Amino acid sequence: MRDTMELLRLAKEAVSQRAAGTDQKNRALMQMAACLESRIPQILEANARDMEMAKDHISKVMLDRLMLNEKRIRDMAEGIRQVAALPDPVGEVLQEVERPDAGRSNSGGKDGLLIQRITVPMGVIAIIYESRPNVTSDAAALAIKAGSACVLRSGKDAWNSANAIVLAMKAGLEMAGLDPELLQLVEDTSRQSAVALMKARGLVDLLIPRGGASLIRTCVEQANVPCIETGTGICHVYVDRAADLSMAADIVYNAKTSRPSVCNAEEVLLVHEAVAEEFLPIIKRRLVDDRLLEGLAPVELRLDEKAQALIPGTPAQEKDFDTEFLDYILAVKVVSSADEAIRHIGAHSTHHSDAIVTADAAAAEEFTARVDSAAVYVNASTRFTDGGEFGLGCEMGISTQKLHARGPMGLRELVSYKYVVKGSGQIR
Amino acid sequence: MRDTMELLRLAKEAVSQRAAGTDQKNRALMQMAACLESRIPQILEANARDMEMAKDHISKVMLDRLMLNEKRIRDMAEGIRQVAALPDPVGEVLQEVERPDAGRSNSGGKDGLLIQRITVPMGVIAIIYESRPNVTSDAAALAIKAGSACVLRSGKDAWNSANAIVLAMKAGLEMAGLDPELLQLVEDTSRQSAVALMKARGLVDLLIPRGGASLIRTCVEQANVPCIETGTGICHVYVDRAADLSMAADIVYNAKTSRPSVCNAEEVLLVHEAVAEEFLPIIKRRLVDDRLLEGLAPVELRLDEKAQALIPGTPAQEKDFDTEFLDYILAVKVVSSADEAIRHIGAHSTHHSDAIVTADAAAAEEFTARVDSAAVYVNASTRFTDGGEFGLGCEMGISTQKLHARGPMGLRELVSYKYVVKGSGQIR
Repeated sequence: MRDTMELLRLAKEAVSQRAAGTDQKNRALMQMAACLESRIPQILEANARDMEMAKDHISKVMLDRLMLNEKRIRDMAEGIRQVAALPDPVGEVLQEVERPDAGRSNSGGKDGLLIQRITVPMGVIAIIYESRPNVTSDAAALAIKAGSACVLRSGKDAWNSANAIVLAMKAGLEMAGLDPELLQLVEDTSRQSAVALMKARGLVDLLIPRGGASLIRTCVEQANVPCIETGTGICHVYVDRAADLSMAADIVYNAKTSRPSVCNAEEVLLVHEAVAEEFLPIIKRRLVDDRLLEGLAPVELRLDEKAQALIPGTPAQEKDFDTEFLDYILAVKVVSSADEAIRHIGAHSTHHSDAIVTADAAAAEEFTARVDSAAVYVNASTRFTDGGEFGLGCEMGISTQKLHARGPMGLRELVSYKYVVKGSGQIR
Repeated sequence: MRDTMELLRLAKEAVSQRAAGTDQKNRALMQMAACLESRIPQILEANARDMEMAKDHISKVMLDRLMLNEKRIRDMAEGIRQVAALPDPVGEVLQEVERPDAGRSNSGGKDGLLIQRITVPMGVIAIIYESRPNVTSDAAALAIKAGSACVLRSGKDAWNSANAIVLAMKAGLEMAGLDPELLQLVEDTSRQSAVALMKARGLVDLLIPRGGASLIRTCVEQANVPCIETGTGICHVYVDRAADLSMAADIVYNAKTSRPSVCNAEEVLLVHEAVAEEFLPIIKRRLVDDRLLEGLAPVELRLDEKAQALIPGTPAQEKDFDTEFLDYILAVKVVSSADEAIRHIGAHSTHHSDAIVTADAAAAEEFTARVDSAAVYVNASTRFTDGGEFGLGCEMGISTQKLHARGPMGLRELVSYKYVVKGSGQIR
């Protein structure tokens, strides 16, 4: 098994060479996609080994995420081609200043000092993720397009699949004349290798942990490399006193039930007391009774005291308002004002996506101004928080922090910038 | 003494209210400046106490930095007024997408989903700094203009001065109808309060340590709040084989001697072996002999083996190439290629400011592409890395990291953004 630090050094060395231009990167991406498709049998064979080893200890949902078939591999290749089609985020001149009054040495020329702020690659981007094989190809494609090396630390259950995918993509890089060392799969899948990435100062320029709350917490506590927190979403929908209750019910239904396992799904419903008596029975009917009639999983409602007085459900415990259920469970609280809702969100949200449903423009304005989350919605479902929906193309994850990137991270969020200053002998 | 966490909670609560508009912030800044000027006697009295306590244990240079007089206070007030005159960085729509095809509930309206990416305040910005009283007013002014609360942790030696300045600025905030709790000076000047700021997750949205390498290192190791590394500069000037040697000598002289105590001063000179025999004697004459004749402090040259063969000087030790001298000392190394220079900089630079002197466009291009520093110079002095010089107005520090902000941080680097999404019942 190769040492994680050694892989990082290889990646750093590869990315320290002169960066590839747009055309070469795009050719490499097209070759990576072609190699994925030409190696479908090998990738499926590796995936079958992963499935066999995992089948007794992971859930059906997780097994389905892990499973590859020909269509899924072709979709991954298509994803890489889509990244090739996106504009190159590197080399953009963000700002240009000429300072004609800059001091100049006697031997200097006639021109001013030209100061340009230009986007540049991050360097080595490391990603810690779990068992979805398509993250392997998505992350690699985005990193390569962004001019960076990519060090992937896949979950143990998907390692053989990830390895087969990485080998195919490395072949693609090589065919386009790029250094295959730009792409590395960490061989050690123990906890140590994740911590090694978090501590690899000088070798990891950006670490993106994609996973549950405990991985993110470990990163925050242990990492001394630059790190972007992603993905945990305790998302709220606040139904204001001035809400169109039919619209509100549709939004709550969609945000909670359309895909409860994802980070932009609703976990907490806040209802203004002026409409709670009318609205909560509607919600109970939509999320529980109607779904039972339709043979769908009903949503378990965990109710604060005021809500319990209005509809039947499970009494909520304090921790229910701080839990990312990722399941058919919804915590419900009745509030006496928009201010109380905003304060509750400030104290309990993971700052991912939070929504207000209201016809009152002032309440909407207050909510969007004061709720400090990556995406703040008025009269729409939180489920829209997504790179594709927001028009960024592919995404590397959804940042819940305020530094550098917020919300869905596309190519633009995977580059840095530098100042390039050109003179003719200027001194200060 | 008030508890640091309590001050942070007051700041967080103050900034969680509806943010002030541009006019109100600018009025507050003008009042802050006026209050500084109207309290000159009180501030001078507090500063005299600091000077008295510090005079026996800090250097003359540090005492001069600490010292206030009427002119310096008026300059601080003028600095605040300059911040008032800068454009408001908050509320700028960076991007706008309308998605007419977004799904819609039956009760929804006719329009598409409007997705805006808008700049927003960070929240609570904390700054750990040393003994320069003007940092107190500069940092507070920038934070207030950026819509944030500001928690200042001044060095012990300047605490009375900082407190008098903060009291004046709080009075100014209040006169403009802003909450004076937006501005806090940490009362505990022990190491604990610095660590408390580094660990105050949820209360500090951005921590900026301004100080020496050891403070930055502590932050990197201990902080679990978002943090921007600033200021340490091991800056290189590389004199290429194709350099105009007269221009090169002027640039080296300026970068090393114009203000050796600042972070953008040169610490290491790299010379191509093809010109070393001609160039190093010029440098020795300019930095040592001529300065002695002029009665100025000569620069101590710490020479690698090849340089020692060409000019007299101190033999360099390995650590001399990894030291921010901030003094009249220059480490000198002869390299055999531009590639060796670029690699040396990659291994030893703090990624602040590095320069090449060359008439060869290809070498310049290679250098600017591969040197991974906040500011990369061609034929100009590293001393230009500065918010004012780069046209950003005031600066909060110079970032040496690649995430979020790089190089001089002005107002634009002190805000975050959020997505505000407005719909009429859209669901996904």
